[in-house]
Amino acid sequence: MTDGFIERCSAIVGPTNVLVDEHDTAPYLTDWRGRFTGRARAVVRPASTAEVAAVVRLCAELRVPIVPQGGRTGLVLGSVPDAAGDAVVLSLRRLNRIRTVDTFNRTMTVEAGCILQDIQRAAVDHGMLFPLSLAAEGSCTIGGNLSTNAGGTGVLRYGNTRELCLGLEVVTAQGEVWDALRGLRKDNTGYDLRDLYVGAEGTLGVITAAVLKLFPQPKAAITALVALATPRDALALLKLVEGECGPTLTGYELMSDVSLRLVASHFPDLPKPFPERYPQYALLELSSHESEAHGVALLERAIERALEDGLAQDAVVATSIAQSRALWAIREHIPLAQAAAGKNIKHDISVPISRIADFIETTDAQLEADYPGVQVVCFGHLGDGNLHYNVAPPEGIRHDDFLAEQGPINRIVHDSVAAHGGSISAEHGIGALKRDELPRYKSPVELQLMRAIKAALDPLGIMNPGKIL
Amino acid sequence: MTDGFIERCSAIVGPTNVLVDEHDTAPYLTDWRGRFTGRARAVVRPASTAEVAAVVRLCAELRVPIVPQGGRTGLVLGSVPDAAGDAVVLSLRRLNRIRTVDTFNRTMTVEAGCILQDIQRAAVDHGMLFPLSLAAEGSCTIGGNLSTNAGGTGVLRYGNTRELCLGLEVVTAQGEVWDALRGLRKDNTGYDLRDLYVGAEGTLGVITAAVLKLFPQPKAAITALVALATPRDALALLKLVEGECGPTLTGYELMSDVSLRLVASHFPDLPKPFPERYPQYALLELSSHESEAHGVALLERAIERALEDGLAQDAVVATSIAQSRALWAIREHIPLAQAAAGKNIKHDISVPISRIADFIETTDAQLEADYPGVQVVCFGHLGDGNLHYNVAPPEGIRHDDFLAEQGPINRIVHDSVAAHGGSISAEHGIGALKRDELPRYKSPVELQLMRAIKAALDPLGIMNPGKIL
Repeated sequence: MTDGFIERCSAIVGPTNVLVDEHDTAPYLTDWRGRFTGRARAVVRPASTAEVAAVVRLCAELRVPIVPQGGRTGLVLGSVPDAAGDAVVLSLRRLNRIRTVDTFNRTMTVEAGCILQDIQRAAVDHGMLFPLSLAAEGSCTIGGNLSTNAGGTGVLRYGNTRELCLGLEVVTAQGEVWDALRGLRKDNTGYDLRDLYVGAEGTLGVITAAVLKLFPQPKAAITALVALATPRDALALLKLVEGECGPTLTGYELMSDVSLRLVASHFPDLPKPFPERYPQYALLELSSHESEAHGVALLERAIERALEDGLAQDAVVATSIAQSRALWAIREHIPLAQAAAGKNIKHDISVPISRIADFIETTDAQLEADYPGVQVVCFGHLGDGNLHYNVAPPEGIRHDDFLAEQGPINRIVHDSVAAHGGSISAEHGIGALKRDELPRYKSPVELQLMRAIKAALDPLGIMNPGKIL
Repeated sequence: MTDGFIERCSAIVGPTNVLVDEHDTAPYLTDWRGRFTGRARAVVRPASTAEVAAVVRLCAELRVPIVPQGGRTGLVLGSVPDAAGDAVVLSLRRLNRIRTVDTFNRTMTVEAGCILQDIQRAAVDHGMLFPLSLAAEGSCTIGGNLSTNAGGTGVLRYGNTRELCLGLEVVTAQGEVWDALRGLRKDNTGYDLRDLYVGAEGTLGVITAAVLKLFPQPKAAITALVALATPRDALALLKLVEGECGPTLTGYELMSDVSLRLVASHFPDLPKPFPERYPQYALLELSSHESEAHGVALLERAIERALEDGLAQDAVVATSIAQSRALWAIREHIPLAQAAAGKNIKHDISVPISRIADFIETTDAQLEADYPGVQVVCFGHLGDGNLHYNVAPPEGIRHDDFLAEQGPINRIVHDSVAAHGGSISAEHGIGALKRDELPRYKSPVELQLMRAIKAALDPLGIMNPGKIL
């Protein structure tokens, strides 16, 4: 093309930060799971908010679509360009400064390209906790976490990324800088634009910096694994522990026996927590601001009650950091064991916590009816109503062949989610992957409201086109 | 007018629920503090979401401005009509059903007209806590709380109303029903429309119902009053207590000696907590999910450390419910004592917690320079960075005369708020009262974004015109 885009971009960010050679751009074009490779005119790597704004203004002038990108660890094809090749990838990775830490206000102001793990560490260096934690934390950026409203393992106590953000700096679709880096817990001065950009997956503007909430660092974390007869007992146990332990309960994960057997078969060296097998397991984490002894006593008392009530079948409370790590390792090895077993059909869904047991029973039964012998690997953040409900082929059917059933199986699972008042994307977002499914599960009124917002804030339609809507 | 509005409205809600006589409409037209009385064509009282939608469709067709109204306890003239007389007041008070309580999901689905206190009680009836709590809780409605994103005394631990809401039902400005009564902790399927309607003060649509978060009920609440030398010590004490007590700290209020002397002079029967006077006081509340003894021990340990470190000058921990109530009574009597003393110039402001001491010092000094002898009654939710920074006349000047200085004093206080990175409305909203001040403290970019949202969702401009923008 002869619109001078590359030259003018180079004048803004410097020629070494405008990548156009196939070899240079390749790492920015393929999604994390390697399912899709897009094309782009260029990859542009600004180093400051002002440079981002100048690039966006240029793109607006020349009508160049913009695909904002952070650590590229998203799971719904939200941060890679489509196949058209007319878009520019706007990498935020060079905006990676921690601007300030304010321990009295319990806030940290960070740029969008900061790696989540670096933010966690900076918080610890100041004696504080930044509680967002998820598998990709070594690679993902906070800009991506904000744009997808990432969840993870701390949501039960601390909320999603949305709840961890007090203020934003955003480059609008017109290339203006909206500076709202406010560190305020209370501010009722107009529309909540912050939460509109959070979770918008880069389709309304570019998040360039944020004010994050920090929390006091707990003195001890205590882990327990509880064996259960049914998902329904897992719900009752959650309610019991919440009543007994209040906000010290910081994690509550559900794992099915199928999940644990899969882990055991692929990682035989991991310890077996119980001599017998049980249908379900709950992994609990308590955080005490008092002491380890306090946390252990509190958790043991709650579990004793659950054993007395017949809610729990058996339980282990970790009495060392090594034991605690071993229990969490089981949970963390489920996705790894699944990957080792072969490709499967994944779902990141949520339903009201009270309907989890119904959802599992109904959906398991319908899948078994349509696909006899199908293996459901169900685990996840029960305390948030969020399950990773993954479907693997019956024995004897090759995983790759089974992927042909992705469409009908998505339909069964997501229709069941909708029937149970749930969401087809609990923590991953919509991106390009689930975009075409959205109209089936959103009302026309909601889609129309979303389109009105999109048209109002990005009238040229240049911000991450083809994502969400 | 001859547009048939009254007749067609009557056909929707029944003639007894369309009020047009001056005598009938009067209670709906004057604001809570009695500062302003507006005019309206009619007051319409629908009983269901469908009726609300039909009324809004009619108003859209005939271009009748709509002023949604709940308990009419707002403090910024957000829920009363202006003087033009062409608007209809849409009272939501008859939508007052608690639709469902889901104890496993920890949610309650309520209609907009439910009184906050009724919701609190319904939660307690189910062994749960709905933590929103504020002075007007006996009269205000949850629809108003949501529309103004109300704060109150539980924000430190539980967040503003925004954080307590999982889902909404909204009648859009076009009279369509957006049903998003989702009880989900995680849902990343598109733009966060919920948080756009929350805090929009009825200018984008009408909230008709909501899914609220419930929490386990703590077993005991422990209150303490700590005497302090400076606001700076109050910040250091907050940090210390948060570190020691973590999320059991559920309230942290600051009160100046001026505030307490005012209470003592108007309510001499209230107990004096300390034999001596101190410049500042912090009122702390801890909530224990274990026991009263646990909470007392935890709080006493933290306060002992503060006394050892010289942060605290003296302290009392309430050892009975009566003592606890007496401590809170001091705090709650500050606005009453102010009202008894005469009118004063009120500010509901927030700054980053770390800047509270600076803000108080700077602003006190500037007011004293311009108005020698001026009395600042400063108290509020220090743990949220939210102060009620109220200004009363020097001795010898009549309160009513002093009100003439409202404009210049607002300017001094709000400019200082802005210089400290704060908000001119922490928890009350903008309404009509602060609308004309907003452009001074918001950037043109932010105002433009807000106008774009308003135009996108309410293109006819019929929703609560003249409020916020």
